Amino acid sequence: MPSSHHQQIAQLRDRFTDRLHATFTDKQPRGLYAPIDYILNLGGKRIRPVVALLAAGMFGDKELSNGMPVALAVEVFHNFTLLHDDIMDDSPLRRGRATVHEKWDVNTGILSGDLMLIQAYQHLCDCPDKNVLPALLCSFNRIATGVCEGQQYDVDFEVRGDVTIAEYLKMIELKTAVLLGGALEMGALAAGASREDADHLYAFGRLTGLAFQLQDDLLDTFGDSADTGKLRGNDIIRNKKTFLYLKAIELLGLERREELNRWFSESPADPAEKVVRVTELMTSVGIPEAVAKLRDEFQAEAYAHLDAAGGDPEVKALLRNLTEGLLQRIS
Amino acid sequence: MPSSHHQQIAQLRDRFTDRLHATFTDKQPRGLYAPIDYILNLGGKRIRPVVALLAAGMFGDKELSNGMPVALAVEVFHNFTLLHDDIMDDSPLRRGRATVHEKWDVNTGILSGDLMLIQAYQHLCDCPDKNVLPALLCSFNRIATGVCEGQQYDVDFEVRGDVTIAEYLKMIELKTAVLLGGALEMGALAAGASREDADHLYAFGRLTGLAFQLQDDLLDTFGDSADTGKLRGNDIIRNKKTFLYLKAIELLGLERREELNRWFSESPADPAEKVVRVTELMTSVGIPEAVAKLRDEFQAEAYAHLDAAGGDPEVKALLRNLTEGLLQRIS
Repeated sequence: MPSSHHQQIAQLRDRFTDRLHATFTDKQPRGLYAPIDYILNLGGKRIRPVVALLAAGMFGDKELSNGMPVALAVEVFHNFTLLHDDIMDDSPLRRGRATVHEKWDVNTGILSGDLMLIQAYQHLCDCPDKNVLPALLCSFNRIATGVCEGQQYDVDFEVRGDVTIAEYLKMIELKTAVLLGGALEMGALAAGASREDADHLYAFGRLTGLAFQLQDDLLDTFGDSADTGKLRGNDIIRNKKTFLYLKAIELLGLERREELNRWFSESPADPAEKVVRVTELMTSVGIPEAVAKLRDEFQAEAYAHLDAAGGDPEVKALLRNLTEGLLQRIS
Repeated sequence: MPSSHHQQIAQLRDRFTDRLHATFTDKQPRGLYAPIDYILNLGGKRIRPVVALLAAGMFGDKELSNGMPVALAVEVFHNFTLLHDDIMDDSPLRRGRATVHEKWDVNTGILSGDLMLIQAYQHLCDCPDKNVLPALLCSFNRIATGVCEGQQYDVDFEVRGDVTIAEYLKMIELKTAVLLGGALEMGALAAGASREDADHLYAFGRLTGLAFQLQDDLLDTFGDSADTGKLRGNDIIRNKKTFLYLKAIELLGLERREELNRWFSESPADPAEKVVRVTELMTSVGIPEAVAKLRDEFQAEAYAHLDAAGGDPEVKALLRNLTEGLLQRIS
C-alpha cells in the first residue's frame, strides 16, 4: 500500500479510536458499564469501523457525521459478539488480557453484552440525518441476525462429523464475512448511497471476508510463523475442521483419509509430529493451491463488485489498497 | 371493568397472540430459533403488548398496522429479558415449564436471547410508516438501556446491606416500570402522537408500573393466597428486601429492627413461624397502610398524566379500566 494511503488509513483509525474512547463513561451502575469500556479498550485492528468510514466517505460524507455513528455501531456490535462468544467458549483470554467473564463473572458478561447490543443500535440513532435511519436499522437487523445464525452453525458443526464444504463456507460467511459486508453497506447507506451501490459494497465486503478467512486458515497451517506471529499449525493442534481439513478429506484416498481423521481425533501432549504429518497429508493433495485458488476467486469477485459500485474513485482505491494489504498481512 | 371492556381487551389480546404465533418459524438453525418460539409460547398476560396496541389505537392507528409491530417488539424484548434473567438467576422453571437454559443449555439461552433482542428491533422495522422509525428506535434504546440498568442494580442490591428506599424504588422503576411506560410511549409514537402526548403516556405507564410492583409486594405478604394463587409470605421466606422490608426497617425501634434482620438472615425449613412473626412486625408499624398510601399516590399521579394526554377518550377509558382491573387482581 502506498505510504500516503497508509497514512490516510492510520488517520482514519485514530479518528475512530478517539471517538470510541470519548464514549467511555462514568455512568452508574459501574458493574454494567465498566466491562463495556474494558472490552472496547482492548484494542484490535478496527477494520470494520475503518471500512465503514471509507464507505461513507466514498459517497460524499466527507465530515463522517453519519459515517462515524455507523462505525461505532459496527465496532460495538463486533465486541458484543466477542464478549458473548468468549462466555460460550469459556475463553480465559482476549488479546492477551482476561476476558470479561473471567475478570468479572458470567452474569456480568451476559448483561453487559446485552447492553452493548443495545448501544450499537443507540449509535445508529446518533446519525444527524434521520432520513437514513430506516434503511440503516433494517440492514443492521439483517446483518446481526446473520452473525447469530453463523455462531449457532459453528456450535452445531463442532459435534457433527458430516459438515459439507458448502455448509462450512456458509457458516464462515455468516459468522465473519457478513459483518464486514454490513460495515461497508451501512457506511454507504449512512452517506445516502443508493440501494444498488450499497448492495455492491455489501457483496464486496462479504466476498472479501470469505477471502480473508481462507487466507487466515491457510497461513495458520502453511504460513511463516515469524510473519503471522502465531504458532504454526494451531488449527491442526486444536482439531479445527477448517476448509483445509474438509477439502483434504474430500481429496484424500481412503487410507490417508482415515489417517487424517485419526490425527484429528487425538490431542497429543507434543503435537509436533501431528502438525508435520497433517501438513504433509494436506500438501499431498494440493490443499495450499486449492485454498489459494478459492481465495483468489472470492477476491476477484469482490473487486468486480467494488468496481461496479459508484462513489469517489480515490476512496475506492484506498479501500482496495487496504484490502490488499490486509490479505498479505492477515493473522 | 365493564364486560364490554373486558371483551374488547380480550379481543385485542387474541389478535396479538395470533400475530405472535404467526411469527413462529421453521427457519434454520433450529438450535437458535426453536428456543425463541418456545419461550414466546409459554403464555403470560401480554399486558405490555396490549397497552401498546391501546396507545396506538388512542392516537388513530385503528388498523394497528404500526401498533402491532411495536407490540411484538415490546413482548419479544420482555421475553428476551426473562430468558437472560433466568440464566443469571439459574431458575429452573418459568410459568411452570422448564426454562430455556434447562431445556437446552446456557449457551443456547445466551445466543437465542441475543437474537430475540435483535428481533425486537426487527419488529420495529416492520412498521409500514417509516417516518415513525427514528423516534421509535431512540425510545426503544432508552427503555432497553433502563431495563439493563435495573437488572444490574437488582444484582448489586442483593449483596448490599445499605440499600435505601429511594434506591430500591429507582431499581424497580428501571427493572419493571420503564418497560410498561415504554410500551405505551412507543404505541403512541407509532400512531404519530406528539412527543408531549407520548411523554404523558410514558409517565402514566411508569407510575402505574411502580403502583403494580407495590401492590404485588403487598399481596405477597398481606394478600389472600386464594385470590393471588401464590403462597403467602413468599418474599419473606426468600428474604427478599422489598419496599415492605425497607420501610419496616426504617420505622421499627432498635429491638424489633434487630429481630426483623435476624429473621431475614435465616431460612428455616418450616417457615410458618417466620412468616407470622415478620408479618406481625410489619403490621405493628403500619406497613400495609404505608404501602397502600404510596401505591395510591403513584396511581393518582399516573392517572393525572393519562388525563393530560390527548387521544380518543373511549380508548383512554378502556386503558384506565384495564389498569384498575389489574391493580385488583395482580399476582
